[in-house]
Amino acid sequence: MQVAYTSADIVAIVTPQRTAGATDQTIRDIAGLGAAGAGDLSFLGNAKYKAEVAASRASVLLLPLDYAGEPAANQLYLFVENPSVALARVCARIEQLLWPKPPAGIHPSAVVAPTARVAPTACIGPLCVVEAGAVVGEGVFAQASVFIGRGAQIGRDCWLLPGVVVGAECVLGARVRLQPGVIIGSDGFGYEFVKGRHEKVPQVGHVVLGDDVEIGANSTVDRARFSRTVIGEGTKIDNLVQVAHNVVIGRHCILCAQVGVSGSTTIEDYVILGGQTGVGGHITIGKGTKAGGQTGIGSSVAPGSYLNGTPALPYLLERRLQILHQRLPDLFKRVEILEQKAK
Amino acid sequence: MQVAYTSADIVAIVTPQRTAGATDQTIRDIAGLGAAGAGDLSFLGNAKYKAEVAASRASVLLLPLDYAGEPAANQLYLFVENPSVALARVCARIEQLLWPKPPAGIHPSAVVAPTARVAPTACIGPLCVVEAGAVVGEGVFAQASVFIGRGAQIGRDCWLLPGVVVGAECVLGARVRLQPGVIIGSDGFGYEFVKGRHEKVPQVGHVVLGDDVEIGANSTVDRARFSRTVIGEGTKIDNLVQVAHNVVIGRHCILCAQVGVSGSTTIEDYVILGGQTGVGGHITIGKGTKAGGQTGIGSSVAPGSYLNGTPALPYLLERRLQILHQRLPDLFKRVEILEQKAK
Amino acid sequence: MQVAYTSADIVAIVTPQRTAGATDQTIRDIAGLGAAGAGDLSFLGNAKYKAEVAASRASVLLLPLDYAGEPAANQLYLFVENPSVALARVCARIEQLLWPKPPAGIHPSAVVAPTARVAPTACIGPLCVVEAGAVVGEGVFAQASVFIGRGAQIGRDCWLLPGVVVGAECVLGARVRLQPGVIIGSDGFGYEFVKGRHEKVPQVGHVVLGDDVEIGANSTVDRARFSRTVIGEGTKIDNLVQVAHNVVIGRHCILCAQVGVSGSTTIEDYVILGGQTGVGGHITIGKGTKAGGQTGIGSSVAPGSYLNGTPALPYLLERRLQILHQRLPDLFKRVEILEQKAK
Repeated sequence: MQVAYTSADIVAIVTPQRTAGATDQTIRDIAGLGAAGAGDLSFLGNAKYKAEVAASRASVLLLPLDYAGEPAANQLYLFVENPSVALARVCARIEQLLWPKPPAGIHPSAVVAPTARVAPTACIGPLCVVEAGAVVGEGVFAQASVFIGRGAQIGRDCWLLPGVVVGAECVLGARVRLQPGVIIGSDGFGYEFVKGRHEKVPQVGHVVLGDDVEIGANSTVDRARFSRTVIGEGTKIDNLVQVAHNVVIGRHCILCAQVGVSGSTTIEDYVILGGQTGVGGHITIGKGTKAGGQTGIGSSVAPGSYLNGTPALPYLLERRLQILHQRLPDLFKRVEILEQKAK
Repeated sequence: MQVAYTSADIVAIVTPQRTAGATDQTIRDIAGLGAAGAGDLSFLGNAKYKAEVAASRASVLLLPLDYAGEPAANQLYLFVENPSVALARVCARIEQLLWPKPPAGIHPSAVVAPTARVAPTACIGPLCVVEAGAVVGEGVFAQASVFIGRGAQIGRDCWLLPGVVVGAECVLGARVRLQPGVIIGSDGFGYEFVKGRHEKVPQVGHVVLGDDVEIGANSTVDRARFSRTVIGEGTKIDNLVQVAHNVVIGRHCILCAQVGVSGSTTIEDYVILGGQTGVGGHITIGKGTKAGGQTGIGSSVAPGSYLNGTPALPYLLERRLQILHQRLPDLFKRVEILEQKAK
Repeated sequence: MQVAYTSADIVAIVTPQRTAGATDQTIRDIAGLGAAGAGDLSFLGNAKYKAEVAASRASVLLLPLDYAGEPAANQLYLFVENPSVALARVCARIEQLLWPKPPAGIHPSAVVAPTARVAPTACIGPLCVVEAGAVVGEGVFAQASVFIGRGAQIGRDCWLLPGVVVGAECVLGARVRLQPGVIIGSDGFGYEFVKGRHEKVPQVGHVVLGDDVEIGANSTVDRARFSRTVIGEGTKIDNLVQVAHNVVIGRHCILCAQVGVSGSTTIEDYVILGGQTGVGGHITIGKGTKAGGQTGIGSSVAPGSYLNGTPALPYLLERRLQILHQRLPDLFKRVEILEQKAK
């Protein structure tokens, strides 16, 4: 990290209730209590690490109000209500340094169709393409090499990182953040088998992403056969996730990396799917369902389910079956003994 | 969808055998029978939804010839031999609106090597790169930010969507469609372990895609160590699929999302692999084999197999074993009872 | 392959200890012993194929010193200590033809910030973006449409293929090779659940790739929440692999295609993970561990483990359990018989 904060800068950002000690070190990085050295900021986010504070060599420490202890020489303690939140404030500031939004305007190397409407406060970075009829809202940041297709609509304050593709007619709400390489609006995977060949079913629907959706690097969301593929407000999707055509995902869901959701499935609000989980087509995953990693869900599940395994089973049952499965060698032996006795 | 068809436009596209009723609504979207409203086109594609037709508020309905019923006020029925095929015709027309092929020519922002040969009817869109010696056939559409490497050959009427990479020397047949972010001809994954380090085995083969192959967003197909990685005519591949070096895939196969095929494996014609299925290296998957989602295939399988599970087993056996697996708690109890009796 | 070597060219590259026969064919391709024809180079890399040499129609054959046999008409035998190594030398030469590094310099279509420092021997290809403060080392080759973010550091002789994204502040050692579409430094997937919404935890760390790391097409490596995500020297990663934030991977590891590693996990040196394997978060995979394809590793494992299955078990135990699992129908029957006898 190429940051350089004085201790006064940090105090200004976190506004501690009280302080102890002082440091003349410039803060250049953040580190865990044990790993931190001179020039590092650290924090006590979890009471179980309390014992590590005294030995920490961090120059500045964010500590809860009730922490009792004295800083070392050239060390500054900042006492705050919630050290994790205070750290997040510092991180938010650093994030702006890492990814400063350039001034509004269209980079001269970008290719923007005359009929596209780009808001005056939007920033279209180098080597982006904006096709005819696309609408780019206020404060949008298309960083570099972003493609925005015909008639697509990008809501206010969206952030599209390098290499993002938003296909024709797709609609993004406000503050959507798409990590590098995300593809929105690729064709759904639909064919009819006619005379020994797979004939393409044209995919003419689009994709709608709600406000505050975030999608991870190289994930893909297919356009609907017709109508819409939908991802609800506030849902967060990790890297390399596949969302097929006509899927409807509710609000505030979490899809971890490499999850795949097959076509026309509905995932209700507040669902959490662990990494590499696969979800079959044309089913419904009830509200608030949770699935562990590598789960395979082939049929609809009731709200509030907690699943794991392939095929997916209730989590505790799956765990119990795993344990019994590992006792199979013993069970076979026991049956053999019974058989010999029964002879 | 930003379409606007009059009922006369729809009639002209689907050429119904007869009609009933009339509508003055402009058709702006397609929707299912239940969801459709004024301005929507809907269709009866499956007899089991017949009862929904009468209540549908769609302005125009595509119906089979034998449908008996009367349209509502301001509603048009179009009777056709196959409503699904009629709908596909409308969708194909809309697809051309969504993705109109621009006039032939090379966009001024594209970077095309002097020794590349681009057919006069091809369209090389903005910010594409075509390297030395590449050959781009008649009617090809490289939409935007497409990379075509040295000596690659792109067959007639191929469509390469934004962000596609076709590596050096790779060969595409006619009408190949590559969704955004597809990588053809990345290096195969080959190393020799020498003195504690993995030394790279240069990958100097290429990739050959047959006519009418389609590959989904962000999928990857590695070039061969030497010779070819091959995907046969008419095979369709979904998003985020991995095809390793020297794999040979036959004709008219279907690989669903997130499938992975390891190196030097042969997949014969008409194979269908469900999502997230993994296929080991140096094996043969016989013609017409089908595998359910998340299958793990570690050894060669005979033609016509129907598989599921990891390790892959015949589908019905796998289902039976799943059921018995879930009865393990009961089985352990039964054995315990027997043991107590046998004491 | 568009190569054309005379037999004299091949002799000059492989420097055989002795030769037999001669050919006037131009060598245009490499093929296996059985598939090779006139104009092909072939080799005996594995003694078990010895019998195929006599019948091979290759124009030039690389053979071990002890091979006893006579070339056919218009066929050249080259006897070398290690035919595989000799072939690799030919392939390395062909690789340079396939992917010739252009002359140093910045392509006029690239967008390079004034404050970026690009070494004079580096090549920044067409349509690349290099942001402010980035440092690009000697001999680096950014082929086309590569994005190098603010303050990123690219070590000497790195090769970044088309569409690669290296995010702000990320650091690459020497000779790192990133296949097309690789994303380094996307945001880690971190949220806090506050009042029914997932609030983003800013991800302000970066990624450090050691010397000689290679990463496959469309794989993704997330930046750390703070501090670093690390991939050690010489580690090789295949296509479509996910490495989450704050993961630390050791030296000389192999991660096959579609592997996923969850956040804050440590993978020690010389670990090998088979395709589609999933690794949970906050655990340690001991040095030299091997896991078969589709393994699910949820908890820490000791050095030298050999695992398979979900949940991961010792490989031989897992194989044994698989066999017993397939005998469940028989076991249920045997218990039923015992029960009838016990009545």
